[in-house]
Amino acid sequence: MNFESKIKTIEWIDNISRMIDQTILPYEFKTVDIKTAEEMYKAIKDMIVRGAPAIGIAGAHGVSLAAIELAKNIKDKNDFIKALEEKALYLKSSRPTAVNLQWAVDKQMQLAKSINTSNVNEIVCALKENGKKLENEDIEINKKIGDYGAQVVPKGATILTHCNAGALATVGYGTALGVIRSAYAKDPTIKVFADETRPRQQGARLTTWELTQDGIPTTLITDGMCSYFMSKGMIDMVVTGADRIAANGDTANKIGTYTVAIAAKYHNIPFYIAAPLSTIDISIKSGHEIPIEERSKEEVTHINGNWICAKDVNIINPGFDVTPHSLITGIITEKGILKPDFTHSIKSILV
Amino acid sequence: MNFESKIKTIEWIDNISRMIDQTILPYEFKTVDIKTAEEMYKAIKDMIVRGAPAIGIAGAHGVSLAAIELAKNIKDKNDFIKALEEKALYLKSSRPTAVNLQWAVDKQMQLAKSINTSNVNEIVCALKENGKKLENEDIEINKKIGDYGAQVVPKGATILTHCNAGALATVGYGTALGVIRSAYAKDPTIKVFADETRPRQQGARLTTWELTQDGIPTTLITDGMCSYFMSKGMIDMVVTGADRIAANGDTANKIGTYTVAIAAKYHNIPFYIAAPLSTIDISIKSGHEIPIEERSKEEVTHINGNWICAKDVNIINPGFDVTPHSLITGIITEKGILKPDFTHSIKSILV
Repeated sequence: MNFESKIKTIEWIDNISRMIDQTILPYEFKTVDIKTAEEMYKAIKDMIVRGAPAIGIAGAHGVSLAAIELAKNIKDKNDFIKALEEKALYLKSSRPTAVNLQWAVDKQMQLAKSINTSNVNEIVCALKENGKKLENEDIEINKKIGDYGAQVVPKGATILTHCNAGALATVGYGTALGVIRSAYAKDPTIKVFADETRPRQQGARLTTWELTQDGIPTTLITDGMCSYFMSKGMIDMVVTGADRIAANGDTANKIGTYTVAIAAKYHNIPFYIAAPLSTIDISIKSGHEIPIEERSKEEVTHINGNWICAKDVNIINPGFDVTPHSLITGIITEKGILKPDFTHSIKSILV
Repeated sequence: MNFESKIKTIEWIDNISRMIDQTILPYEFKTVDIKTAEEMYKAIKDMIVRGAPAIGIAGAHGVSLAAIELAKNIKDKNDFIKALEEKALYLKSSRPTAVNLQWAVDKQMQLAKSINTSNVNEIVCALKENGKKLENEDIEINKKIGDYGAQVVPKGATILTHCNAGALATVGYGTALGVIRSAYAKDPTIKVFADETRPRQQGARLTTWELTQDGIPTTLITDGMCSYFMSKGMIDMVVTGADRIAANGDTANKIGTYTVAIAAKYHNIPFYIAAPLSTIDISIKSGHEIPIEERSKEEVTHINGNWICAKDVNIINPGFDVTPHSLITGIITEKGILKPDFTHSIKSILV
């Protein structure tokens, strides 16, 4: 059973990629039409589109947009592929931590190279179609993640989530919030606690917006409060998304996730990751090897354009942290819930 | 050796209590003159003055202000004391969690009752003098706390603190930041990480302001980041203040402290509380009995007057949490550092 979300975060329409501008939510709802690879690079970097699965699709669309542009001037297939490779590398460099971006861009490049044609327009056409296909698959995958995840949500549970791994982080439905949507469809007594998720406040701005749009009861808390509510027995489980999962189950996700996972362990509360299999980077043995994006100082020193601290303070702003596999109860994927030992369960499911 | 702070948070001058308005820092530096018990109640409640030791002094001044007002019309000592008792109860109700407020107001009332006179003006005079004395004692106590605390700060350490237990939370010098000031005076290679401390952002607004004023290198981090930096070996110890310490060492402090303490334990990083002995409430056996103030929803939903989330979200806003004694390495007081078993060490020091 599924609970449809009305939100379509990113969508290919004719020759443009249309996306919800997530930098201005919940103050304003507006879509942006992205028409070039350069615009897509900027949209990903500036987090107009964000969330690992959504920026995967954005990357795939970016390759299509680059291909449309290149095909206007380059007719030789080899030259075309070479030029497209450069654009692909450029798109992949927009954000380093989430592996889905690399995965989706690589999927497009494999397709481009595999088509047996000398007509570059045929390649363009195939890339556009494949982008659309990845979009649809993303929603289907999320619904499967949701349904598997709903099986481990206790009746009447209050679920804590960090950041936004929702419809807005995917094409639609969401991963962590997909689990919540599927659980809520079965049991309307479940409730959500959403971490604010400083510095970018995706929990406050995006998760509260999308869950209240769907009528799911949501309580906003500040990031430091999680342990308080856990100690009061007010949180039954934690579910978050992921930006990259190493072969041993170590999981990179939005900064602050690791702190929540430690607090959950201390209180014996199950801590789940919900993510598509494309988030798993089997080439990386452990979380230590996952590159952590360092973002701008202004994300910490400013909120809504206003200073919030002394002007001569130092800032270090890691965008992500790594939760070690030992703190993770299970990884909810479209093919079922992976359990420890993750090295073994991840290897088995990817065969 | 001491490192003088230029900040005088609260000061009795003639017949007024002058305080730094902490609601507008670091944007503006302004003092406010409090002239009545009613103005003092509001100043404490609205956090113009905040921090357990500082609101203790504010409470003492509040009793003096009430006494000045009452002495104008009530000349009978018994009637005067009775009326002053009412004002004392009213002042103590302004904030429920910090015990220093009750401690200081009770000190003033004991004094008022003990004076052998039939002239109420003599009582007023004694209360004013005692308020001034408590002020001076607070700074002396903080310097002692600082010097004891500095002994456990490793050379070149990076110290994480939460909220503001600084000069601004006391009359001057600070408790947790007093430890940092004393350590810095001995070793200018020490550094500070300051948690932002949502919702009221005392770390971002007050701690970064007061430490950078004194030239102490300070890095601002968001509340969720602490575990990341701990896992990278970038934090050597944690020191925070306290609003109330139970007889077993359980410590109420600003919301989020408990989360930091759990993270410190997970990473085997020493976690210290720095607080005057007046913070210890021997009448309370454990942290479960400490009343936790529930504050307004707007503190979570708004920053600098602007909405930061969906409008129909639920809010629960506990102002404090309780860190269990098992997570505390030591309690730094003006009479030395208390160590576990705290039930024993607290009892011994209060004898």
